[in-house]
Amino acid sequence: MKIAIFPGDGIGPEVTAQALRVLETLSLPGLTLFEGDVGAAAYRRHGHPLPEETLEMARAADAILFGAVGDFACDDLPRALRPEQAILGLRSELGLFANLRPAAGFPGLEHLSSLKPEVARSIDLLVVRELNGDVYFGDKGERMSAGGREGWDAMSYNEAEVRRIAHTAFRAAMGRGKRLTSVDKANVLETSRIWRETVIAVSGEYPEVELEHMYVDNAAMQLVKSPGQFDTVVTGNLFGDILSDQASACVGSIGLLASASLGERQTDYGTFGLYEPIHGSAPDIAGQGKANPVAAVLSLAMLLRHSLGREEDAARIERAVEAILADRVFGGDLGGTASTEDIGDAIVRKMV
Amino acid sequence: MKIAIFPGDGIGPEVTAQALRVLETLSLPGLTLFEGDVGAAAYRRHGHPLPEETLEMARAADAILFGAVGDFACDDLPRALRPEQAILGLRSELGLFANLRPAAGFPGLEHLSSLKPEVARSIDLLVVRELNGDVYFGDKGERMSAGGREGWDAMSYNEAEVRRIAHTAFRAAMGRGKRLTSVDKANVLETSRIWRETVIAVSGEYPEVELEHMYVDNAAMQLVKSPGQFDTVVTGNLFGDILSDQASACVGSIGLLASASLGERQTDYGTFGLYEPIHGSAPDIAGQGKANPVAAVLSLAMLLRHSLGREEDAARIERAVEAILADRVFGGDLGGTASTEDIGDAIVRKMV
Ligand SMILES: CC(C)[C@H](C(=O)O)[C@@H](O)C(=O)O
Ligand SMILES: CC(C)[C@H](C(=O)O)[C@@H](O)C(=O)O
Repeated sequence: MKIAIFPGDGIGPEVTAQALRVLETLSLPGLTLFEGDVGAAAYRRHGHPLPEETLEMARAADAILFGAVGDFACDDLPRALRPEQAILGLRSELGLFANLRPAAGFPGLEHLSSLKPEVARSIDLLVVRELNGDVYFGDKGERMSAGGREGWDAMSYNEAEVRRIAHTAFRAAMGRGKRLTSVDKANVLETSRIWRETVIAVSGEYPEVELEHMYVDNAAMQLVKSPGQFDTVVTGNLFGDILSDQASACVGSIGLLASASLGERQTDYGTFGLYEPIHGSAPDIAGQGKANPVAAVLSLAMLLRHSLGREEDAARIERAVEAILADRVFGGDLGGTASTEDIGDAIVRKMV
Repeated sequence: MKIAIFPGDGIGPEVTAQALRVLETLSLPGLTLFEGDVGAAAYRRHGHPLPEETLEMARAADAILFGAVGDFACDDLPRALRPEQAILGLRSELGLFANLRPAAGFPGLEHLSSLKPEVARSIDLLVVRELNGDVYFGDKGERMSAGGREGWDAMSYNEAEVRRIAHTAFRAAMGRGKRLTSVDKANVLETSRIWRETVIAVSGEYPEVELEHMYVDNAAMQLVKSPGQFDTVVTGNLFGDILSDQASACVGSIGLLASASLGERQTDYGTFGLYEPIHGSAPDIAGQGKANPVAAVLSLAMLLRHSLGREEDAARIERAVEAILADRVFGGDLGGTASTEDIGDAIVRKMV
């Protein structure tokens, strides 16, 4: 079993360090860890946010534990050299097309949400976001027009692309509440028309799942008004970027939320994937012991579940996290005083 | 002074009727009203959701009061014939490039929001959405690809398009809190790169306005977490569609929210524009007297202010609406029992 560890920038390294401590407590047989450079850290050392050797390491692994990328110092670099390219490049080079972002409140932490406690408590949804297509990876550029310089980006989805993410979403819905909301803008976009028609075609294979379609503007509205109505949500790369962040904000504690990005490749133990916290690199608080490592630890749990077939270990980690939250081991983001390391300590203690 | 009245579908006609009663109380000298067909109603009568004669009427007017369009019965029509094309067609044919959507809570109605009352109360923002460009009006179509049928849409913005909406937004910010948040996805999109560079260039002319840039995913998050941080928000057509609906949902009472869509053309009295409630046609409750006409009445107030230069009358209408809300004249959407007509009656009584 090989895990590539890409800590990245800002608070990435410190939260990843705590996840690795938790991983150690499992004493997994035959586990090998590689550490690679990504983001601004990689740019400084190798002149590129996603160096070839990092990509090689990723390809050789069964799973990737990713911290975070991003640094104010890179704001003026051309886009191709900015830290975000590391995560975009990994997603496309490795064919990680399915981003799973569960958003559910932690009991007792509803007060952290800006939503009313009863509304926050009702949230228990999974956003399945397509990660390899859409306007993210289409042709793009600048050209001259009658109105001066013009920036353009090509948006598209084809049936094969939609089909595979739809299958992922329907299967996920089968393991949850059997309700799937497909979000698009089919009243305006041809990309969305193909999206919707293909999702409907795939739905025939999942008669038990109740499928509904929602325009993205209405979805953004409903996610605020009554987020409890959603079970599984499937959508394209751009709308998924927006709605999954919105859903995380509804929960209120983004320092606790993890995500998985899965590809098609099967390893000896499960599905190849990359796992990362929802939160960013937060360079303003880096190195101060203020970061919450829970999202990184829960990303590790997702990694064990999806890529290494170790459901038991994943569940143990999740129980340990629940236990320390019940004990109110809170960092500053949750209104407490525990440091990044204190929180790691507490989780490690619960693992024995 | 000529106002074109386009009541449209569903609850559109009944809420527009109440706005017209309020307009009558003003006894404006030299006012002419025309009524035209749009949406499903127009499709049934003329075979098109935006008939040529409606467009002619719009062109001849100083302002348009629009109800709502949309009807379940049209779901299976080809997109070009669906009711939404009426509003999309009016926006592009008439050059209505600036959509102004104020979102602010009404004192005493914070409980309607799913946000905590103190968070809901903090909302007082204006979304300035570009309406004539972006992926809405670019080339689009279907083609064959290696992955089967592929839907595609071209997204773009040029400097001239961004410049004019930026000026609208900076001017609006000058009349408000002098803070402007420009929302884009410049870490991924070339369209957004031109957007951001152009907004920065225009900002030089408004040294008093504090400008910040925010990625759309972060904006969707911040709009839930702390919507009170926003004063004026400017963004493209697609992101504006999503974020303005999200902001309306944060306020909690979309039956109360109005919008203006302005063009470049100056009339004898102000700026040519179209005014409509935020809410849709709600065909499920049409004709039952359940619709809240306040958004339509407040759209009329915006029309008087922006297109007819009648600030006094606009303010009078807004005060009348505040007064009936203070009197708790509430329809079902606000937890009361007043009918559409009862609410219209109450507003009319406050106008004398
Ligand atoms: C960093 C950025 C390019 C990225 C995205 O838009 O996908 C991020 O927002 C995310 O959601 O992982
Ligand atoms: C009906 C639809 C095409 C329209 C849009 O997306 O612009 C609507 O959602 C709006 O915001 O006015």
